[in-house]
Amino acid sequence: MSDTPSFTPSCPIPNSRNELITLAHGGGGSKTQSLLDNVFRPLFSNDYLNQSHDGAVVPTRNQSAFTTDSYVVEPLFFPGGDIGSLSVNGTVNDLAMCGAQPLYLSASFIIQEGLPLNDLIRIAQSMANAAAAARVKIVTGDTKVIEQHGGAGLMINTAGVGSVEVETELTPRSVEAGDVILLSGDVGRHGIAVMAKREGLDFQTDLESDCAGVAKETLELIRNGIDLHCLRDPTRGGLASILVEIARDGGFDIQMDEMSVPVHDAVRGAAEILGLDPLYIPCEGRFVAFLPEAQASRAVRLLNAIYGSPRAKIIGSVKEGTGIVSLQTQIGSVRALDLLSGEQLPRIC
Amino acid sequence: MSDTPSFTPSCPIPNSRNELITLAHGGGGSKTQSLLDNVFRPLFSNDYLNQSHDGAVVPTRNQSAFTTDSYVVEPLFFPGGDIGSLSVNGTVNDLAMCGAQPLYLSASFIIQEGLPLNDLIRIAQSMANAAAAARVKIVTGDTKVIEQHGGAGLMINTAGVGSVEVETELTPRSVEAGDVILLSGDVGRHGIAVMAKREGLDFQTDLESDCAGVAKETLELIRNGIDLHCLRDPTRGGLASILVEIARDGGFDIQMDEMSVPVHDAVRGAAEILGLDPLYIPCEGRFVAFLPEAQASRAVRLLNAIYGSPRAKIIGSVKEGTGIVSLQTQIGSVRALDLLSGEQLPRIC
Repeated sequence: MSDTPSFTPSCPIPNSRNELITLAHGGGGSKTQSLLDNVFRPLFSNDYLNQSHDGAVVPTRNQSAFTTDSYVVEPLFFPGGDIGSLSVNGTVNDLAMCGAQPLYLSASFIIQEGLPLNDLIRIAQSMANAAAAARVKIVTGDTKVIEQHGGAGLMINTAGVGSVEVETELTPRSVEAGDVILLSGDVGRHGIAVMAKREGLDFQTDLESDCAGVAKETLELIRNGIDLHCLRDPTRGGLASILVEIARDGGFDIQMDEMSVPVHDAVRGAAEILGLDPLYIPCEGRFVAFLPEAQASRAVRLLNAIYGSPRAKIIGSVKEGTGIVSLQTQIGSVRALDLLSGEQLPRIC
Repeated sequence: MSDTPSFTPSCPIPNSRNELITLAHGGGGSKTQSLLDNVFRPLFSNDYLNQSHDGAVVPTRNQSAFTTDSYVVEPLFFPGGDIGSLSVNGTVNDLAMCGAQPLYLSASFIIQEGLPLNDLIRIAQSMANAAAAARVKIVTGDTKVIEQHGGAGLMINTAGVGSVEVETELTPRSVEAGDVILLSGDVGRHGIAVMAKREGLDFQTDLESDCAGVAKETLELIRNGIDLHCLRDPTRGGLASILVEIARDGGFDIQMDEMSVPVHDAVRGAAEILGLDPLYIPCEGRFVAFLPEAQASRAVRLLNAIYGSPRAKIIGSVKEGTGIVSLQTQIGSVRALDLLSGEQLPRIC
C-alpha cells in the first residue's frame, strides 16, 4: 500500500509500524478513541477540533460557502501527492471557486480493515500539511471501518466552510460577452500522474500531479480588485468539460485557441499513448477565471508574481451565443467541444 | 438490493426501473449530469442547491455548528429507515447536540457500480423527506462511482451547518454535580433493527429503528429556557459509551439505575439471544441531556408534550468524582460501566 518504507510517523503510536486497521478501530470504543487521540487529534490540533464534540462550533460571518467532496483515488499515493493532500486541496479549491476564504474542513474517513496504520498516519500528516498551507483548520471528523473487499483501502470525505469575499455571485450567469478566460497553469498533470502510477506506466519522466490549493491565488485577484465573474477548477472532466458546462449554463459561446493552452510535454506524450485528449484530463491545482478583458493583463501579472514564472495565460474569450465552445486547433480547423458521456479516467480523485 | 419492488420514483427517469449505476455515472460527464438533473436536483431542490456550483453560498450568523458523518450501514434498507434517512437524521442530530438549529447539509454519494438506479432514487427520496421533516436544506453534493467489490452498494457522507442557539458551550466540562440526566426514549432499537435485518433473524416482532431527527426536541428545551449543560446522542457504542465518555471528559461520576432506562421488550429479547447488552446498542433518534435537577420535571414535560406519551425520563445523576459511571442493576448490585474495546455491532450506521 505504501511506497515509502522509510516514513517515520510524527506522533508516537506504539507498534504502529506493523499495526493494521481492524473493524474495532471504527466501532466507537476504545480502539476508535486511540485512533483519535494518537493520530487525528495531535496532527490536526486546533481549538475547534479540541472541543471533542459531535460537531465543532465555529465563528462565521454573513455569507458562507459550503462544499463537499468524497475522494476515492487509487492508488492512495501518487507522484506529487496522496489521497490526503488531494482531499484537503480539492475542497479548499471548491471554496476558492465560490470566491471564499477557506476556513474550516471536516474530515471523514472510510477505512478498509487491513490498511496499515502507518499509511493512515502518513496520509493524515499530508492532510495536516495541506491544511496548514491553505490556512484552513480541520475542525470535525468521523471514522468508519468497513470490511476488506479489495479496492484502495481508504476513502476520505472532506466538507468545507469559508467566508465569501466577493460581492458578485460567481456563476456562469455573471459572465458577459467580451470577458476573457484566464487559465492558471498547464493542464492534465494530475490525471496522468495518477494513471501512470496505477497502470505502472513508465513515461521516462518525473511528472508529478499538480495537486495544490489555489485559494491564495484567487484571493489575491479578489483583494486586488479584479472583477471576477466566474471561477471554476478543471477537475473531473478536465478543462474542456468545465468550459462546456459554463457556456451552456451561462448561455454564451466560448472561442479558444488550442495552442494557447499549456500542456507539459510528458502529459502530451502520455495522453497520445493512452488515446486521451489533454483537454479532458483532470487537474487538481488549476483554475479558470472569467473576467473583463480590460483587467486581463493585470490579473495575469498578479498570478505570475505569485508563481514566479509566466504560468497563467489568457486562453479564450466569451461571445454572445447559445452555449457552444469552439476550439481553433493546431492545424487550423475549428471543432466544437462537448461533454464526455463516460468515464475517461476513473478513480483519479 | 431493494426490498420494495412496488416503489415508484417521484421523478421521471426513462427506464430507471432496470437501469444500473455504472462507472460513467461518476465520471463528471453527461451521465453524471443526468443523475444530477434527474434525481438529486429535483428531489433536493432549493435556492442554494440550484446555484449548481462547486459549493453553495449560504447565509450564516456569528456562531455556526459544523459536523460530518459517513454512513456505511448494511443493509441499505432496514425496518424503520434506510441509509438515506439515517444519513440526514444522524447529521441533523449531531448539529442538535451542539445546541444548534440545523440549516444546511451536504450530501456526498460513493456508489458501487451495479447499484439499481431505482434504489438510489428511493434513498434520495428518503433523504429529501427526512430533510423536510428536520427543516434542513441539502445545498451541495458530490457523486463518485467505484468498482463493485461486494458490500452494501452505497455509502453516503453528509456534513451539516447550523446556527448555534445556546450561550453555554454544551460540553462535559459544563456539567455540574447535582445535574440530572434526561433520556428522550427507549434505547437500542436501531442496532437491533439493522442487525435483525442483516442476519435474517426473525424475532416475531415488528420492531423498527428509532431513526429520527431530534432537533425539534432539543430546540424546544432551549427555547423554553431549560439550562442545558451537555447534549449527546447515543449512537455508536450506545448509551453506556457516551455516559462513560462524558464522565471521563468532565471529571465527575455518574450514578444511574438500570431499571430507569427504558428498553423495548423486543430489543431486550433480541439482545439476550445475541449476547448483547442493550445499554451498548446504538440508537439513531434518542438523546441525553444534562441539566439542573430543578428543571428536570419541566424538561421532561416539554418533551413528552411533543411525543404525546411519557417517553422521556430522568435516568441518573451527576456526583463529584473521577469519571466513574456506576449502574445500580436490577438485582441490586452495582457495576461500573466502561468503553467497549471492539466493535459490538459493525455497519449499523
